[in-house]
Amino acid sequence: MRANETILMSLDDVRDYARATLTRVGLSPAHVEAVAETMVAGERDGCASHGIYRLLVAAQSVAKGVVVPDAVPVLSRPAPALIRVDGGGGFAQLAFDRGRPHLAEAARTCGIAAMALNNVVHFAALWPEVEALAEDGLVALACTPSHAWVAPAGGTKPVFGTNPIAFGWPRPGGMPFVFDFATSMVARGEIELHRRAGKPVPPDWGHAPDGSATTVAEEVLAGAMRTFGGHKGSALAAMVELIAGPLIGDLTSAESIAKDAGRGGSPIGGELIIAIDPAGFLGAAAAEHLARAEALFASIEEQGARLPGSRRHAARAVSLAEGVHVPRQLIADIDAVTKESR
Amino acid sequence: MRANETILMSLDDVRDYARATLTRVGLSPAHVEAVAETMVAGERDGCASHGIYRLLVAAQSVAKGVVVPDAVPVLSRPAPALIRVDGGGGFAQLAFDRGRPHLAEAARTCGIAAMALNNVVHFAALWPEVEALAEDGLVALACTPSHAWVAPAGGTKPVFGTNPIAFGWPRPGGMPFVFDFATSMVARGEIELHRRAGKPVPPDWGHAPDGSATTVAEEVLAGAMRTFGGHKGSALAAMVELIAGPLIGDLTSAESIAKDAGRGGSPIGGELIIAIDPAGFLGAAAAEHLARAEALFASIEEQGARLPGSRRHAARAVSLAEGVHVPRQLIADIDAVTKESR
Repeated sequence: MRANETILMSLDDVRDYARATLTRVGLSPAHVEAVAETMVAGERDGCASHGIYRLLVAAQSVAKGVVVPDAVPVLSRPAPALIRVDGGGGFAQLAFDRGRPHLAEAARTCGIAAMALNNVVHFAALWPEVEALAEDGLVALACTPSHAWVAPAGGTKPVFGTNPIAFGWPRPGGMPFVFDFATSMVARGEIELHRRAGKPVPPDWGHAPDGSATTVAEEVLAGAMRTFGGHKGSALAAMVELIAGPLIGDLTSAESIAKDAGRGGSPIGGELIIAIDPAGFLGAAAAEHLARAEALFASIEEQGARLPGSRRHAARAVSLAEGVHVPRQLIADIDAVTKESR
Repeated sequence: MRANETILMSLDDVRDYARATLTRVGLSPAHVEAVAETMVAGERDGCASHGIYRLLVAAQSVAKGVVVPDAVPVLSRPAPALIRVDGGGGFAQLAFDRGRPHLAEAARTCGIAAMALNNVVHFAALWPEVEALAEDGLVALACTPSHAWVAPAGGTKPVFGTNPIAFGWPRPGGMPFVFDFATSMVARGEIELHRRAGKPVPPDWGHAPDGSATTVAEEVLAGAMRTFGGHKGSALAAMVELIAGPLIGDLTSAESIAKDAGRGGSPIGGELIIAIDPAGFLGAAAAEHLARAEALFASIEEQGARLPGSRRHAARAVSLAEGVHVPRQLIADIDAVTKESR
């Protein structure tokens, strides 16, 4: 097998392969379906790191006992505009899927609503979730802590997770405006890639364990990453800890990594999703005002700047028409690991 | 009068002076009271640029017809968790004050609520508002567009305002955790200060009108500022435009500056404030979970990093005990301008 050999798969092939693998690993049918869809979305949008590569992570999470493979999410509504889904230690995707229609209904009834996912394992991006809500016609904001890997601005010791913030905005007749970024300077996977390649990292990515400046990837991984945007990114990272941690009765990133106890598992804890119905403030005038948002997008694109998500959307068009190219070695690795994990 | 001569004023002196001046300028009594309090808060917390200096801005806004000095805010509740305050073209502070108890009540009833301020003139910071809501025991997030001065990442033409995001978190027995930052690289006033001092600005602050790189403050002011944090800050700036603009039926920053038509007035438009009641998700367990947030704050401060707002809080302690030192020249300037403006 050549190192760079790929297999052309349709998205249906990807879905079938992901489902078969997740089933073999031991996930219950409902989790298989929910988790497989996020991997299809990752491959489809050219985010290989969130595609079927994550089958390796899912398999490890089951094998190490990090995730409850057949958890049944339990839904409650503690207040008219609040939805809570206790994921029972399972992957977040199914908890989200179960809560989504209830969140949408609450947002339409109350104008704004929030959903807490509690006691879930996170190993996927947030953009599929805010995109789904935007496709329901809602404005959505989602965030989650992770593991304590990131130092606050002015410090050098890890407190925050990579703490992503994702946002979705419905665009009539088009794909939603969606962004999803880590509040850390870069994704942790970027530093891993530098480590594997033996390449130095830029000096503003992180701190060594002793707090000194470093360009050695291993030292950043063992020490602390930095937030993006200095004290402003650090403030946002703190906000994510608070509103998707204590506010919803769930773990901070420091508590999540302590609970992991060195297993190297995915972050465990909560997620907060806020949804707003544009018809709430605007009523029948919603369409007219959403059209003004289109003028904003045009003023960005007309000067040659890209909208967030535009690369994913371009990749999606190709993937839907032509399928995706998956490294043959990755399939071999996944097959080997998931046969072991039985 | 020596250039650096100051007058020691108690905060009550500041309040009396601000009220007398705003009354002379022509604001109605309700606006006088609301606007004066934000200036007292600015002086008290060592934010001179948001203290009585702003009396000059308020006077200009009235003189140029930018603001309606006796506007009466009109409150409505388009959905159970949505409050709308039409400010009638007046300053935002009174609209906020009128809506605040209704927003708090809606958040307690529904778990989460949002308030739109519409048709208001903005010339003050957002932190006093989220701090007030946090003092009511609520978690609060506020944002507003401004005037189109900031280019999107990857572009060089202004689209966004300085688009601040402010967040407040209640701390039992202490001052709330509060941050408030512009999504532009720096405050516009910083660039003004460099211009007046004839100092170059760092090359990552903005673009010249022709799109080229520049370190000349005048060129950045005439061209475009940059967002903080590259494409991530740019994404957040876009979010603020959307959720505090079209989503609430109000102006984008481009529309606000177009409406200003060269008068040089303060931004006109909307503001969105989201409030969440910690008791909504947590019920009786709220105190226990807020205590876990305190552990997060401790892990930041114990390593020598500062919490956002800590400088303001330190200044506040001094101001409350000893009063504040106000430049005598500033008082003379304000007196001169506000006598003219009668």
